[in-house]
Amino acid sequence: MPDADLAIYAVRGVGEVTAGANLADLLAEAATASGGPGILDGDVIVVTSKVVSKAEGQVVALDDAPDAKVRLVESQSARILRRRGDLLITETTHGFVCANAGIDLSNIDEGMAVLLPEDSDRSARRLRADLRRRLGVEIGIVISDTFGRTWRNGVTDVAIGCAGVAGIIDLRGTLDAGGRLLEATEVCVVDELAAAGELVMRKATGIPAVIIRGVASEWLRDGSVRDEIVRAPGQDLFR
Amino acid sequence: MPDADLAIYAVRGVGEVTAGANLADLLAEAATASGGPGILDGDVIVVTSKVVSKAEGQVVALDDAPDAKVRLVESQSARILRRRGDLLITETTHGFVCANAGIDLSNIDEGMAVLLPEDSDRSARRLRADLRRRLGVEIGIVISDTFGRTWRNGVTDVAIGCAGVAGIIDLRGTLDAGGRLLEATEVCVVDELAAAGELVMRKATGIPAVIIRGVASEWLRDGSVRDEIVRAPGQDLFR
Repeated sequence: MPDADLAIYAVRGVGEVTAGANLADLLAEAATASGGPGILDGDVIVVTSKVVSKAEGQVVALDDAPDAKVRLVESQSARILRRRGDLLITETTHGFVCANAGIDLSNIDEGMAVLLPEDSDRSARRLRADLRRRLGVEIGIVISDTFGRTWRNGVTDVAIGCAGVAGIIDLRGTLDAGGRLLEATEVCVVDELAAAGELVMRKATGIPAVIIRGVASEWLRDGSVRDEIVRAPGQDLFR
Repeated sequence: MPDADLAIYAVRGVGEVTAGANLADLLAEAATASGGPGILDGDVIVVTSKVVSKAEGQVVALDDAPDAKVRLVESQSARILRRRGDLLITETTHGFVCANAGIDLSNIDEGMAVLLPEDSDRSARRLRADLRRRLGVEIGIVISDTFGRTWRNGVTDVAIGCAGVAGIIDLRGTLDAGGRLLEATEVCVVDELAAAGELVMRKATGIPAVIIRGVASEWLRDGSVRDEIVRAPGQDLFR
């Protein structure tokens, strides 16, 4: 059997992440422990926003009022797009369009809520710099979260921050095998990396990160979810 | 280094696919050729809709009129949602919401257009049955296509048909590590498999299929994109 073109490894044994934790240390120790996959030049690490937020202390208490969650969602949103009962589809202060402003009440103490990181691209850049300093590796970082989709049932993981890996690969101007210009040509590879990572996280519990090995080396450049992927309100057709 | 939790292999050397081709034979020969990854029980094969459509003869000639493409898009659509110049966002006759009804003018002879498969779930079931007959394997099939997203720049691959693999994994009723009910709990794993496959297809050209090895065995059950993932117009908040 040949080597896989792409290999995805769970980072196991990270344990509970609390405010002030050094995520780079936790991930490096878990990944390079005996039997772990290590972290090599060219790897992309996908890490869930949940543990990034917990490490950064982006956790708040909900008061007892019945509308506490709705008020919290509103406080994290630049505009409300749709409201159906308890479900709000909003544009967050970061520009993401998602349910309930990405606020998460699972895997956190009762009465507490985890917010999205303040600036996930910055969080990714920090984590990348910390891992480079510690391990001397050149890697990409993707911070993932779970979003719904307008026209399709079910949720998938997407990127809400990245560093050292392209948000979008622009193939405009590339010719197909017949010499004609390709049409759908801006591929959002960080969202595909986040989705691929989730396939491994979902197989078990308590897997906050995966290592993806074999990513095309030309994708490993400066990237930003906010600058490349977040669509300005005026640019879409449905807002 | 441990075995990867998920390994993705390109299926190389399939060659040009034309109307009437036996896709199962082409994929089986390419995958099991010397140096190939083989096809094993529990694998999921992701194959692009393009080669499925070509094998099924879903290719039509465009006439010379300047609006030929727009008329073709309209003919494949149940309703037009938005129109901006040449770009139409429509709901296809299958129920997919995408640009230009999924019609593809690249990698096909000048003046010709590739339509989506008539019924991609059926195409996936056929391919699965053909491969089982030929190789005696129990596998999953995902037929992928490249769609844009309402709120995010760039395109990603999603599933437009599947067989032998769940469309959506329903985790409703599952408790998190703290014993609280999980919230975002219907995970669209076939879309994540399609996205993961695209990471390998995009690294090279002429890769119409990949083999994903290591997929959670409980996901390998009957599945359908049309029944599980296509959101009925009355069920979404933006149509």
